[in-house]
Amino acid sequence: MTRKIAILGATGSVGKSTLDLVERNSDRFEIVAVTACTNAEALADIARRTKAKLAVLADESRLTDLRELLSGTDCRCAGGAAALKEAASGDAELVIAAIVGCAGLVPVMAAVEAGKTVALANKEALVTAGQLMTQAARASGANLLPVDSEHNAIFQCLAGGRIEDVAKIILTASGGPFRTASAELIANATPAQAVAHPNWSMGAKISVDSATMMNKGLELIEARYLFGLPSERIDVLIHPQSVVHSLVEFVDGSVLAQLGAPDMRIPIAYALAWPERMATPAQRLDLAAIACLDFEAPDLGRFPALRLAREALETGGAAPIMLNAANEVAVAGFLAGRLRFPEIPELVEKALEDSNSATPRVIGDVLEIDRATRSSVEALMSEGCH
Amino acid sequence: MTRKIAILGATGSVGKSTLDLVERNSDRFEIVAVTACTNAEALADIARRTKAKLAVLADESRLTDLRELLSGTDCRCAGGAAALKEAASGDAELVIAAIVGCAGLVPVMAAVEAGKTVALANKEALVTAGQLMTQAARASGANLLPVDSEHNAIFQCLAGGRIEDVAKIILTASGGPFRTASAELIANATPAQAVAHPNWSMGAKISVDSATMMNKGLELIEARYLFGLPSERIDVLIHPQSVVHSLVEFVDGSVLAQLGAPDMRIPIAYALAWPERMATPAQRLDLAAIACLDFEAPDLGRFPALRLAREALETGGAAPIMLNAANEVAVAGFLAGRLRFPEIPELVEKALEDSNSATPRVIGDVLEIDRATRSSVEALMSEGCH
Repeated sequence: MTRKIAILGATGSVGKSTLDLVERNSDRFEIVAVTACTNAEALADIARRTKAKLAVLADESRLTDLRELLSGTDCRCAGGAAALKEAASGDAELVIAAIVGCAGLVPVMAAVEAGKTVALANKEALVTAGQLMTQAARASGANLLPVDSEHNAIFQCLAGGRIEDVAKIILTASGGPFRTASAELIANATPAQAVAHPNWSMGAKISVDSATMMNKGLELIEARYLFGLPSERIDVLIHPQSVVHSLVEFVDGSVLAQLGAPDMRIPIAYALAWPERMATPAQRLDLAAIACLDFEAPDLGRFPALRLAREALETGGAAPIMLNAANEVAVAGFLAGRLRFPEIPELVEKALEDSNSATPRVIGDVLEIDRATRSSVEALMSEGCH
Repeated sequence: MTRKIAILGATGSVGKSTLDLVERNSDRFEIVAVTACTNAEALADIARRTKAKLAVLADESRLTDLRELLSGTDCRCAGGAAALKEAASGDAELVIAAIVGCAGLVPVMAAVEAGKTVALANKEALVTAGQLMTQAARASGANLLPVDSEHNAIFQCLAGGRIEDVAKIILTASGGPFRTASAELIANATPAQAVAHPNWSMGAKISVDSATMMNKGLELIEARYLFGLPSERIDVLIHPQSVVHSLVEFVDGSVLAQLGAPDMRIPIAYALAWPERMATPAQRLDLAAIACLDFEAPDLGRFPALRLAREALETGGAAPIMLNAANEVAVAGFLAGRLRFPEIPELVEKALEDSNSATPRVIGDVLEIDRATRSSVEALMSEGCH
């Protein structure tokens, strides 16, 4: 029996890895819907290859092009927000939520409310709307399967256990390119230095987040909502080799860990085949060849972003949304040469001081807090008062 | 609701750790039967403390003493093989099989045939009678829960998965006291050097097995029967710190590992509480303090016992029984100064050459092959023709 899949964000990195796995196991899966932001050519190519029934462009202005590219096929073309929601809540049993940024919130929520199994690769869904998403999942019976390597690792370690037997969750972090750097070197870090991640090949924004360790801070917030544990039972552990993707400590003193090559196809395959598993072409782990795994405690002095994220999580309400929005604006500012590296967390901390802490009640509230924070942080940055 | 427990071998190390955990959680467990080999005083003390209903001494000659020691209590006293079987197959839901050596085979089989949940700490049960035990468990519906730290680790890693999704099992080994020793040094190793295990505090016999790596060979055979995977899908990996107790690689490339302090109460607690977990006083793992975990491939040249065990497993039939018996005689000979260290595997290899490979059909056959091998290896050793 084939499993019906919708891929939201099919042209991105997670979308491509998903398609690679689906095409290697075409007897197990059927792609029913694919979406992209603006790239009509890439989306049409994917829709033809996968024989998808629905192709959706978020950007309606390119819908005519998409229709032309897919003429002669059985694939229906659509555009805009309502069509994205339709792709998320339609025929698919499993929705791969791989749209980047807050643009993914509305379609992810539509999939959750429709009770789908949702493979979550959209970080913002849980960072900014964790409470809303998990409440909706409980109400609809939707399963949230994390695709992020750390959360997927924890999910795997919890598969045979009960959450009430968990003492704590331990998120591993590579420590980024400045793990061993002095505070002086970090103060003068250039964008080129900051995006040089030691283990994973990633985009510029997330690479800078890894360098500031804000990435781990955002993952801390995601973990809190995904697994329902309070902040003090979620630890961060530096592990430079990125082989152990995360760990779970149980009340008996047992610790389970998930390890693997740094290949996103492993967690994506876990979500695709869950609760079973499927073969992947990912490289096998050879611990004898790796020889040594190192661990150390994180340094909150040199990496204040981790502290800021934990504070935002504990404040709750609007704070995680503001943290995320302020960080995105600050990182863009750093990459554009408008901020020095240490000013990224400084600007985020300043943004959080304004926290009105009104708890968002619907996704619209989340988007409004996000927009307002971006504009006020942009203004702060332009004024140079940071 | 309390869980009724029988402890076979209550006065040994696993028995004591079990009692420690049970006494800390007296609301969850009820000890219904306890057994020992000859120590009437220690057994009577345990029976009084736990309010056990049945106390059994394997050695009937001390039964009168036991009766006197327990006079005035409600505990029934019994002795001999039939009483041991009764303790194993009576009221208990969970049987802790912690009798050392082949003396444990008959009572363990009785527990398995009675469909009990059996926490297996008796290595011989699976090394010498793996096929018989697992067949009987399938027939009766008995659950076999491994207590050995390595097999318990694998059992934990498999808890949320399906055995058909497993690519391989990876047993970790500390490498013992001679991990980095030259072949020359190993050739002249003394009993004092051989029993100095780096991580676990254990008896002399198992410490020598760790030094020859025969211990890991025996565990390889146990793993084959416990988890039903062929020899070529069970690897051995040297890990000197003994923090990662073993690992499972799945078909998707994911590897799950169980880690923890070297405290037998952790795997025993897992068996006691399974399929849930219970708190233990075991030390928590602090990976940042441990800082580094090392891994290397085993060296079959310096440690031929590992090769011999794999060959015996692949030969099957009587070979694993002969391997185990010959090794016990050879280790005793080494500890008594009658053999040099490298002669332990040499004598085992010689014993295996006689393999008649008749497959044992009942536990009596196993015991007969065991006895015959011991006597022929003893003769080989006395003749000095090794």
